[in-house]
Amino acid sequence: MKTLSQLGEFNFIAAIAKKKLRNKAVLKGIGDDAAVVSISPKDCLLFTADMLIEDVHFLRSADPQAIGHKALACSLSDIAAMGGWPLYAIVSVAFPKKLDSEFAKKIYKGIQKTALKYSVDIIGGDTNAAEKIIIDVFLCGQVKRKQLVLRSNAQTGDYIFVTGELGGSRFGGHLNFTPRIAESRFLVSNYKLNSMLDISDGLIADLGHILKQSKKGAILEQEDIPVDAKAGGLDNAFYAGEDFELLFTLSEKAAKKLILAWPFKKTKLSCIGRITAQEASLQLISKQGKSTKIKPGGYRHFN
Amino acid sequence: MKTLSQLGEFNFIAAIAKKKLRNKAVLKGIGDDAAVVSISPKDCLLFTADMLIEDVHFLRSADPQAIGHKALACSLSDIAAMGGWPLYAIVSVAFPKKLDSEFAKKIYKGIQKTALKYSVDIIGGDTNAAEKIIIDVFLCGQVKRKQLVLRSNAQTGDYIFVTGELGGSRFGGHLNFTPRIAESRFLVSNYKLNSMLDISDGLIADLGHILKQSKKGAILEQEDIPVDAKAGGLDNAFYAGEDFELLFTLSEKAAKKLILAWPFKKTKLSCIGRITAQEASLQLISKQGKSTKIKPGGYRHFN
Repeated sequence: MKTLSQLGEFNFIAAIAKKKLRNKAVLKGIGDDAAVVSISPKDCLLFTADMLIEDVHFLRSADPQAIGHKALACSLSDIAAMGGWPLYAIVSVAFPKKLDSEFAKKIYKGIQKTALKYSVDIIGGDTNAAEKIIIDVFLCGQVKRKQLVLRSNAQTGDYIFVTGELGGSRFGGHLNFTPRIAESRFLVSNYKLNSMLDISDGLIADLGHILKQSKKGAILEQEDIPVDAKAGGLDNAFYAGEDFELLFTLSEKAAKKLILAWPFKKTKLSCIGRITAQEASLQLISKQGKSTKIKPGGYRHFN
Repeated sequence: MKTLSQLGEFNFIAAIAKKKLRNKAVLKGIGDDAAVVSISPKDCLLFTADMLIEDVHFLRSADPQAIGHKALACSLSDIAAMGGWPLYAIVSVAFPKKLDSEFAKKIYKGIQKTALKYSVDIIGGDTNAAEKIIIDVFLCGQVKRKQLVLRSNAQTGDYIFVTGELGGSRFGGHLNFTPRIAESRFLVSNYKLNSMLDISDGLIADLGHILKQSKKGAILEQEDIPVDAKAGGLDNAFYAGEDFELLFTLSEKAAKKLILAWPFKKTKLSCIGRITAQEASLQLISKQGKSTKIKPGGYRHFN
């Protein structure tokens, strides 16, 4: 017998979904931040789900309202990463029977408050008893087809941008992040983005997803990486994950306009590098001009 | 502190969703088998989710392929109960790291096989590690607006029908049931159903949902209740739940046509009673013609 952890690379969802899709309305299944289904020549629906489990994604000692916020905000971030806006949520939960009812109520107040803030209607769900708290939020959003941004279309010469600061998530902010819906709405309404995703696995791993799916490479400028002061260095900005910031690429011409026009004073915008034609190649240029190769999927220590 | 089980009637999803919906496309939120969202003058989407948790809904000793089947089939039954057909699924799972990978693979083979059988595309999901196996299936379906059947429109004089046999689920069949998609397609394509749901809580509790939402009563004929031979009597047919059979009502005229036309030789169709104008009244007529009052939400022992 082999256990799941021994298999290592085993990806249940990729395995289950690899069969050819039958419905031609599905423009994108597994492999991006959300699935994309055409509903009219101009519009698509976006589908995504994120599951939070007690002792895996949060502890009972955490702020219950922040847990509720995060349960919805992870999926909101996925919708933002596709260029869309959120519409409806289905919330499946499981609670221990002995859980303090106030704790459960604060979780749903957190979900409710965030749903209200982002105009999401909670239209269904399923309540269960279990030993651990489980919250699985399914979110349906919409996107104009001409504003849809996938991971797979980065172009050689594109400028690479990231919102906010990276690497600080596990030092306090991982439950309370702001999904970048407003920033995404501004970006796709005014610019043609070639690729985008939200950073959940860490900058290097997630940029790796764009490079792999677009069959491109990239050069990053170390001095331009927006490292969160709490992150304590480049390693956490590169590898820590759960930043939920937008990582996107667009042409040099559009990039130069964007830098001048960026209207969000509270959300930093950083141009961190360029897309190159050299497939699967990722280079970091240090502040002293020294070039280092980085393996997109792997880990390498940086000071 | 009060625990969730002390609160008893606490319904997390109803509590979270009670706020007024903002999006006018939502025709039905919480309270039916699936949520209903209008996408065109003639068509609606249906959204539902069902979560299965190890040691709550199934044991590790169960057939993993049957667990996978049920994870999807519960939601398929919800879509059938609205008069629609299934389209897309998002599958969120959590597995213990030490789980035999063959067990996990058989679960997804069960999901995959059932998805194929009912033409469902699995278009996304989320994989996690946890102590117990968790499978949460979100399903999106479609329904023609004129074929949509809610719980809330039963009419006085309607005949009450149920498919299949009741009460046998917990005696072997609870993982392997057949969602009544084909029967539902036939029914809504040929008859105007006034109300429908799938029996998950037991006949009496679920008929109670139709009566409450429609503000009607009902008379049931004991001799017409299709009690599964495995059920060992009326009590399990009334209260055991997880039958996943369709319970629906339609006019006397349509009912008489339906009884003659029913084409499913392997699925029994039973007319079990009538809808009455007397709100919240539920009566059972015994084989000897004796009338007994039943409380729709409660339990009462029957021989």
